[in-house]
Amino acid sequence: MTVKPEWIAVDWGTSNLRAFAMGTDGVLAQATSDEGMGKLARDQFEGALLRLIDGWLSTDKVTPVIACGMVGARQGWVEAPYRSVPCLPVDKGGLMDVTVTDPRFTFAIVPGLSQANPADVMRGEETQIAGALALSPGFDGVLCLPGTHSKWAQVSADEVVSFQTMMTGEMFALLSGQSVLRHGMVDAKGWDDAAFDQGVSDALSRPERLAAMLFRLRAEGLLNGLSGDAAKARLSGLLIGAELAAARPYWLGQAVSLIGADKLSAAYARALLAQGVTARLLSGDECVLAGLSRAAGKV
Amino acid sequence: MTVKPEWIAVDWGTSNLRAFAMGTDGVLAQATSDEGMGKLARDQFEGALLRLIDGWLSTDKVTPVIACGMVGARQGWVEAPYRSVPCLPVDKGGLMDVTVTDPRFTFAIVPGLSQANPADVMRGEETQIAGALALSPGFDGVLCLPGTHSKWAQVSADEVVSFQTMMTGEMFALLSGQSVLRHGMVDAKGWDDAAFDQGVSDALSRPERLAAMLFRLRAEGLLNGLSGDAAKARLSGLLIGAELAAARPYWLGQAVSLIGADKLSAAYARALLAQGVTARLLSGDECVLAGLSRAAGKV
Repeated sequence: MTVKPEWIAVDWGTSNLRAFAMGTDGVLAQATSDEGMGKLARDQFEGALLRLIDGWLSTDKVTPVIACGMVGARQGWVEAPYRSVPCLPVDKGGLMDVTVTDPRFTFAIVPGLSQANPADVMRGEETQIAGALALSPGFDGVLCLPGTHSKWAQVSADEVVSFQTMMTGEMFALLSGQSVLRHGMVDAKGWDDAAFDQGVSDALSRPERLAAMLFRLRAEGLLNGLSGDAAKARLSGLLIGAELAAARPYWLGQAVSLIGADKLSAAYARALLAQGVTARLLSGDECVLAGLSRAAGKV
Repeated sequence: MTVKPEWIAVDWGTSNLRAFAMGTDGVLAQATSDEGMGKLARDQFEGALLRLIDGWLSTDKVTPVIACGMVGARQGWVEAPYRSVPCLPVDKGGLMDVTVTDPRFTFAIVPGLSQANPADVMRGEETQIAGALALSPGFDGVLCLPGTHSKWAQVSADEVVSFQTMMTGEMFALLSGQSVLRHGMVDAKGWDDAAFDQGVSDALSRPERLAAMLFRLRAEGLLNGLSGDAAKARLSGLLIGAELAAARPYWLGQAVSLIGADKLSAAYARALLAQGVTARLLSGDECVLAGLSRAAGKV
């Protein structure tokens, strides 16, 4: 069966490339590769893209391709300069057009957002935020996008007012995989909700003591036989708790929606619930598609 | 010239092995190799040691060798169980004797210290603490040993009363060398005192916001051209400031001595001075030798 999309949506991150053939009623087909921005030189982007979408292109029309993510970074295909907040998360008129050699498609990049003070940047999340607003028209409140570099964004009147990035996911990966704490987690297979809750509570009630709380995971493994599951879940709780401590002005007394993968969002939702905040969960995949559809002028 | 030591002092860490031929008036000779605990299987320790000290041993007497550090860890030559605080940092009667095959020497390990609550451990630093007390008899106050895993110890009446470990050095290595922040530091060659001071001050005044302050280093590099020197020094300041925030009960209104390498101790001293604490600097090398001398019953 031949796929004939109206347009093609692309989510092009550092590690992965995902393409969606879009018809009037949504996704017709999708394709994925590991040719993320981090692996490509400037002249390799068009080829990497064609390896995924060539079969969807037709010689009798020009198919628009719209992409978000690190493809627009300084090390990407073409740098798409940041747009400054406060602003709409995605502006159809503000896309960055990229010249391609293949006549069957056009290519445009959704720019990221920047904030002057405190200095901050995002690239990719603005599209998910636009998607969340497309899925929940009139939403006024806070969006949290947990991940390698978690983002908290204050949204009002369809604009991103301010945002803040935290390196929680990257810290977890480094500490659990490469620091001395890894010795106590190599056997971790499951999860320990109580240990996670304790970590969140410890970090939120005494955030200034985080530096001491981390090594204690190692010491409790040596002295008290703390299990790998408990150590890993408590580390996650400590770091998410530290993120919540830093982001308190964002969630305290606010309507919060979480955008992201199910398991990680559920952990954030659990941590927020313990602070009395009931967060709504939105799928990261649905939001990125809705955001790219908005950039394409389809919604 | 033949070296004929009375005894041999050994500092055997994870990465390095250092041996000192000791005479009545101090060090006669020293030797170093990279055969640290982390590279050796249990049956390789004696050989690694002999490669350094064989020329100092004599067949007409038995030379005592006394070692501290990770050689006594579970993954080391022989596990020397922790001694619990409060206790003397080093107790000549509490050394762990190790059976060796070579008849020309005996080998004993200084055990590390543990604390039940909050759970904590040290291995190697107890010897430096004993050395600091040998060099400053009657010292009552706080010793800080900056490093990969910084230690803060409360000392009174020659005993370690309590202590606390922070992963500051390891966090700095991971964040500056392996996280997204490395991109803004690859060109760092020098140091920026003002940026360091700002980091210390930011972390100490708003420790709960540390998670947000870290990513800002990356954003300021992208948006405002923050230099590599400034980014690296501010990262160091943020992490040392976070350590001081967590260790506040240890240094506030206390007599503080720093034990360690010159450059790192100087950074800690600068950060403490900004909080009104004038710390005394002690050489890490002198302290480890004085501590091993105490373990050997020589001082």
